[in-house]
Amino acid sequence: MEIELKEDERIDDLEWNGLKVIQNINGFCFGMDSVLLSDFAKDIKKHSKVADLGTGTGIISILLSHKIEPKEIVGIELQEDVANMAKRSIILNGLQDIITIKNIDIKEADKHFENGYFDAIVTNPPYKKINTGIINENNSKFISRHEVKCSLNDVLEQSFFLLKDKGELYMVHRPDRLVDIIDVFRKNKIEPKKIRFVYPNIDKKPNLVLIQGIKKANPSVIVEKPLIVYDKEGNYTDEILEIYHKK
Amino acid sequence: MEIELKEDERIDDLEWNGLKVIQNINGFCFGMDSVLLSDFAKDIKKHSKVADLGTGTGIISILLSHKIEPKEIVGIELQEDVANMAKRSIILNGLQDIITIKNIDIKEADKHFENGYFDAIVTNPPYKKINTGIINENNSKFISRHEVKCSLNDVLEQSFFLLKDKGELYMVHRPDRLVDIIDVFRKNKIEPKKIRFVYPNIDKKPNLVLIQGIKKANPSVIVEKPLIVYDKEGNYTDEILEIYHKK
Repeated sequence: MEIELKEDERIDDLEWNGLKVIQNINGFCFGMDSVLLSDFAKDIKKHSKVADLGTGTGIISILLSHKIEPKEIVGIELQEDVANMAKRSIILNGLQDIITIKNIDIKEADKHFENGYFDAIVTNPPYKKINTGIINENNSKFISRHEVKCSLNDVLEQSFFLLKDKGELYMVHRPDRLVDIIDVFRKNKIEPKKIRFVYPNIDKKPNLVLIQGIKKANPSVIVEKPLIVYDKEGNYTDEILEIYHKK
Repeated sequence: MEIELKEDERIDDLEWNGLKVIQNINGFCFGMDSVLLSDFAKDIKKHSKVADLGTGTGIISILLSHKIEPKEIVGIELQEDVANMAKRSIILNGLQDIITIKNIDIKEADKHFENGYFDAIVTNPPYKKINTGIINENNSKFISRHEVKCSLNDVLEQSFFLLKDKGELYMVHRPDRLVDIIDVFRKNKIEPKKIRFVYPNIDKKPNLVLIQGIKKANPSVIVEKPLIVYDKEGNYTDEILEIYHKK
């Protein structure tokens, strides 16, 4: 099938199972966070209905469709041009039967789905709090990175509504927001059950954190073994190579 | 000076600066957690007034008296026999001018000190939540380990009262309580600012967590580089040897 590429768009090969993704070279391009999140979420049960809140290019949905055996994945994306690009990536990969991209606001997801419809949710939300002096509210990359259109609490409120009881929420975020994240998870009755920190190497602070929360679960969390990206020689560790399917 | 030792008590040499501590061989004996906490708290400013909530044998107060240059340290201990033992350890080390042991309930500390009296607090509180079927409420070791007499919230409520604004609370605890800890810190307006996980080795889950909170600070936390206890050969890492003053 012929896929139309717009100006400033390119097709990137994910180097795994022939998967590809269309990205806008001036927009927000996917990074290691999306790859690690889709791997962190790989224990989602077969035949699950999964939502990807703020799917962006669709990268997490695309990877997840090959990591688990989902019944369906719904990628929700507010920005029309980004959602349109993700839709074309789904077609490019022939994943139309599994992944649907919906161009809606996360904050209004509860108007489009029944309460408890999903078994699991994955999300790579905007990392940064907005400061008072916002310069560029309409810039696509800015919206992807900052909580302009959607706060962490919006994501959790909607996740609580969308998830079935004991349904799982998987999130990747920045460690400096850890206290906010835990606070907002618990307030919305999605109890953090697994947390994993991603350290660039064993002498560095973590730069990412992976969190699994379960709706209406009891307290008590497992902090997992560290995920270390580079060994002392500066090479990828075995675990990172495995996550990237290079080993 | 002659120090009386009771039956079942022994003097342990801390192998640093000639410091010693009396411990009851049937009671709760200090572990790596206390040593790591006193090191984690070593940035407490000179001439600070410091409280040690639930001081037990007094180990943290004793180590801290040589790591920082405090104006005074007050160790608070509910159990009379344990407090008595700690008092004798203070005399044994000649630290009576710096460290005072008070045999009072943490929950009533606000009746003994003015609001904002302390610059910093250190605490190694009981780690375990109490379950419904408590067997041995009066056992000293049980009280040291379980939240029988003092909950995490009690510790934070009192810390908020005792600390000056921007005063620091240093705690060591178990990672499985991380969500409770963060929740209770924030509820009591002591914002977690630094968190460090202690991993037995790089392939294991952390078994301890060190937290620094600051009274009335702004959100945003630093998760520090991992503290790893053993290297791949099973030897202490350089950092642990330094903390134990063996390097």
